[in-house]
Amino acid sequence: MEVLGDAAHANLRVGIGDDAAVLADGSVLTVDTHVEDVHFQRAWLSFEALGYKSFMAAASDVAAMGARPTFALSSLILPNDVTDDDVVAIGRGQARAAKEIGAAVIGGNLSKGPLSITTTVLGKVDHAILRSGAKQGDLLLLGGSVGLAAAGLYVLMRKIADADDLVTAWREPRARVDLGLALSNANAHACMDISDGLAIDLHRLCESSGIGAEVDEEAVLASTPSLGEVAARLSLDPLDLALFGGEDYALLATAKEPVAGFATIGRITTDRAVVLARGGTREPLQRRGFQHF
Amino acid sequence: MEVLGDAAHANLRVGIGDDAAVLADGSVLTVDTHVEDVHFQRAWLSFEALGYKSFMAAASDVAAMGARPTFALSSLILPNDVTDDDVVAIGRGQARAAKEIGAAVIGGNLSKGPLSITTTVLGKVDHAILRSGAKQGDLLLLGGSVGLAAAGLYVLMRKIADADDLVTAWREPRARVDLGLALSNANAHACMDISDGLAIDLHRLCESSGIGAEVDEEAVLASTPSLGEVAARLSLDPLDLALFGGEDYALLATAKEPVAGFATIGRITTDRAVVLARGGTREPLQRRGFQHF
Repeated sequence: MEVLGDAAHANLRVGIGDDAAVLADGSVLTVDTHVEDVHFQRAWLSFEALGYKSFMAAASDVAAMGARPTFALSSLILPNDVTDDDVVAIGRGQARAAKEIGAAVIGGNLSKGPLSITTTVLGKVDHAILRSGAKQGDLLLLGGSVGLAAAGLYVLMRKIADADDLVTAWREPRARVDLGLALSNANAHACMDISDGLAIDLHRLCESSGIGAEVDEEAVLASTPSLGEVAARLSLDPLDLALFGGEDYALLATAKEPVAGFATIGRITTDRAVVLARGGTREPLQRRGFQHF
Repeated sequence: MEVLGDAAHANLRVGIGDDAAVLADGSVLTVDTHVEDVHFQRAWLSFEALGYKSFMAAASDVAAMGARPTFALSSLILPNDVTDDDVVAIGRGQARAAKEIGAAVIGGNLSKGPLSITTTVLGKVDHAILRSGAKQGDLLLLGGSVGLAAAGLYVLMRKIADADDLVTAWREPRARVDLGLALSNANAHACMDISDGLAIDLHRLCESSGIGAEVDEEAVLASTPSLGEVAARLSLDPLDLALFGGEDYALLATAKEPVAGFATIGRITTDRAVVLARGGTREPLQRRGFQHF
């Protein structure tokens, strides 16, 4: 969701600026696009995996509102070298992803042109959790892994041999609907999904909420147990992957108390600074994230 | 709306195959995409007009269900040579279109890549009018003009001088929400919007409904009074424009009785053939339409 368009409407509860729009009747609506050579290369995943991944990425924005995805539309732009079988495979991946989270693809559009997939996901929510709701004294919570998708992307970009097992996190992310619902039930104060990286998305959450945060290095690393081993295999810094790697679609949230399924990785502060606590020291957390190539 | 994805759901009233999906609560949902060098060329319209036209094309699918558009999402894929000002202009065109039909853009997405605009439109309907509802003995109704957008496109493609006044119909189509609501109030049996051309879209309506139709040449020509003069200026056949020209977004409908605002251009038959009545003769109506270049 980015800045585009107009305005307040009696039936609109949340408009531009959050992960998804929320209507007065509890409908949640979001759209996300995957573009060839921007978000993916065809050599990196099958058409079915492309359908799956692009669907999950879009549905993650609904999950981040604490909502339940219901229905989706798919608009495919297809070059001439994509066959009917490829389109069926994309649809199969989308349907599999939709089924896993209790949703269904109910329509779409096909156009000729450079390959991209745009997925609209509709959902339903009782109490939407906004980016802007973080409060002083909240715990900073992380639901799901971080850094693993970036490691997978690194394997693909560098064509690293015998590391296909590390690519799954990038190829098959999951929209964390279960965790979003848990947050909603726990009356969490704020949530967003981490698509571009923990650091930059935490900055965004803090800016929306008008607060600051302190993130604990050790807690971040502990949140994703396999990260140390994965980073070692690739000779990468695990903290760098965790803070600046995108596309894991973990949920970043704040709440007064711990929430089951979430690691507590820090706390909300009032001075508007976003800092990283490493042992006894504190340093500013860089506002950078995952760069699409 | 094209074939993609799965399945029946307790909350789904109309899925894949109609102009838009319809949910049990009366929500209507559709998506449409405009791709550079497929649906438009940048030389042919301003960015604002592109925003306007792409929005109206998407909203037309909601109008064709007899529904009222409410909210929309916009996903833009933008190459590097599109400036921030251009994006603002697209948004201005979208907002103007949305306002004209009582809707609002409440979210979206921006990606890098080859230029395209994907618009999701949500609407609300009491009694959805389907493509598949045409019945024997119905009148065939046409709401809005046909052939004028194709004439405008011809002017642009052939770079015809001093004919910019003929391009407006192509550049600034309107989603006929008013006419769709009139059909719904009149308990019309079937409706779809004409995006690809009267002939091919009539074939589609007949196939969906399992019936045939007879179209009257003179009534078609009379439905769009300026068409004769426009065709003469361009040395084109007005009937060819009317039958095989797309992008006017007129509504093609069937009902037991005439409906105000609609021309009666023929009738529904039971033999599944789609024929054109010209004077005393009848001939099969070709199943061809507007070809995007």
